[in-house]
Amino acid sequence: MHKSLIRLGLVGVGKIAQDQHIPAIRGNPRFELVATASPHGSIEGIPAHADLAAMLAAPGGDAIDAVCLCTPPGVRAGLARMAIAAGRHVMLEKPPAASLSQVEALSRAARTAQISLMATWHSRETAAADAARAWLTGRQIAAVRIVWREDIRQWHPGQDWLLAAGGFGVFDPAINAFSLLTHILDGTLEVVAADLAVPANRVAPMEAKVTMLHDGQAPVTCDLSIAHPGTPQWDITIDTDAGTLRLSEGGHRLSIDDQPQTTDADGEYARLYARFAAMIDGGASEVDHRPLMLVADAMMVGHTRALPPFEF
Amino acid sequence: MHKSLIRLGLVGVGKIAQDQHIPAIRGNPRFELVATASPHGSIEGIPAHADLAAMLAAPGGDAIDAVCLCTPPGVRAGLARMAIAAGRHVMLEKPPAASLSQVEALSRAARTAQISLMATWHSRETAAADAARAWLTGRQIAAVRIVWREDIRQWHPGQDWLLAAGGFGVFDPAINAFSLLTHILDGTLEVVAADLAVPANRVAPMEAKVTMLHDGQAPVTCDLSIAHPGTPQWDITIDTDAGTLRLSEGGHRLSIDDQPQTTDADGEYARLYARFAAMIDGGASEVDHRPLMLVADAMMVGHTRALPPFEF
Repeated sequence: MHKSLIRLGLVGVGKIAQDQHIPAIRGNPRFELVATASPHGSIEGIPAHADLAAMLAAPGGDAIDAVCLCTPPGVRAGLARMAIAAGRHVMLEKPPAASLSQVEALSRAARTAQISLMATWHSRETAAADAARAWLTGRQIAAVRIVWREDIRQWHPGQDWLLAAGGFGVFDPAINAFSLLTHILDGTLEVVAADLAVPANRVAPMEAKVTMLHDGQAPVTCDLSIAHPGTPQWDITIDTDAGTLRLSEGGHRLSIDDQPQTTDADGEYARLYARFAAMIDGGASEVDHRPLMLVADAMMVGHTRALPPFEF
Repeated sequence: MHKSLIRLGLVGVGKIAQDQHIPAIRGNPRFELVATASPHGSIEGIPAHADLAAMLAAPGGDAIDAVCLCTPPGVRAGLARMAIAAGRHVMLEKPPAASLSQVEALSRAARTAQISLMATWHSRETAAADAARAWLTGRQIAAVRIVWREDIRQWHPGQDWLLAAGGFGVFDPAINAFSLLTHILDGTLEVVAADLAVPANRVAPMEAKVTMLHDGQAPVTCDLSIAHPGTPQWDITIDTDAGTLRLSEGGHRLSIDDQPQTTDADGEYARLYARFAAMIDGGASEVDHRPLMLVADAMMVGHTRALPPFEF
């Protein structure tokens, strides 16, 4: 069967687009990058526009089949709505929107418009995550510990929006841990308490401790920070009836009872684009709101305390 | 067909239980109130226990078919889980739990246990809300204004938990407005911004302005306060292509273009118990998480500012 070429417009040409999306798009023969839209960046040799509306209205805009949104989350839902209304398939960087009700509204709009909507969670797409999910299936979960600590100055230098209202703060990276955990574990995860530490001159938390329950029984503790200097720690440790699993380096390394496990090479964004093409072919969508729900719950039940003012 | 008697245990004997649940239970021949559990209150002539576990373990506890949870929301999910695990049908006062992930976990537990779970939203159960929903069907929505303002000292005197983490603050009453709005309007509601005002010595907001969009287009503005002295305002005004609908007095009065509409007498809790009995008979559940989702979203996207310290 002949599979048609998918002409893609990329909206938001920042670090994640440059580092991950563009190599993945160029590595997949199903996709052709035909335009970009960004107030800041552009890609050499690709027609660049100021925004999504201009990109769709430009000569050749009619031929764009799908768009990928790599903007900050605050504007993502409005852009997605515009693209869906224009009948284009949509891939969303994580998190899919600034609020859960936006995600629900986008899912409904996508169904009505009969386009494919893909909310991506790139941390799930590693070989180690696959192996962790397989190993955990059928095990009894006794306890989970997440440590997700990094330095905002290294990973998001100068990005004030991340600490503003709707910017997610420490949950911008921590939602990757939540996306992994909801992927590798069967059963329910529920937020029961949270401690949120917010710099006096910012709105979003830079540190958080979140307590959840797995299947109503096993404690899940989360130690989260973007004020952590030095080497980042991105570890999930799960005690089971058959030993302890550790997923480290943000989902890229797996060990069982401290024995490193060999896994295949990773291609997180290559997998995302391969699946996006298959979803477009099959008329499917993929929207999992659970990682964002855990963030919203932490914000809702959380006790907030003040940190000293933070400047980049 | 003979319908069996439903023997009910009531957990949490506070103001809402005394004012609303007990008259509704006594008014419905399908239910018999056989026990209560509360650290504070009791009902004359009904066996009283310290908590749910004691109630179920006491002589006669085996015969309890269903429980209704009227406790503060922070402990509701744990009690619901215990009741579901014991195979009892569960009615939840609003909000159904402190977090969305708890609601999702309870829904799943109820399906597994094959019991009926009912998350109630009493404000939806008025004749005026029925009439509003019917009138709005098929209309084009242009704008929505919610004003939900009351005095915490009048409606929740001394209830410090309401201003603590997980206590919801102004959203404890405002979730009633959200439950009404999600009920009477078709289409999507999505939170886009919020301003949250929190007393310096408390955690939960006492005032909030929330902006939503209906179906991605019509603005929805919410002016919410529990620091509003004097007469409460509980009004929803909806501009449409066929005139302006106003639902006032918390959903009890309906007007169209300022013309009061006659509606039947209300029996909010009588309706809830009648539907709970029908759900138990039919093996059904009813859990709508949308009002709580709008609260969580407001907390997640909201900009927080400080109010002077508040004491009751």
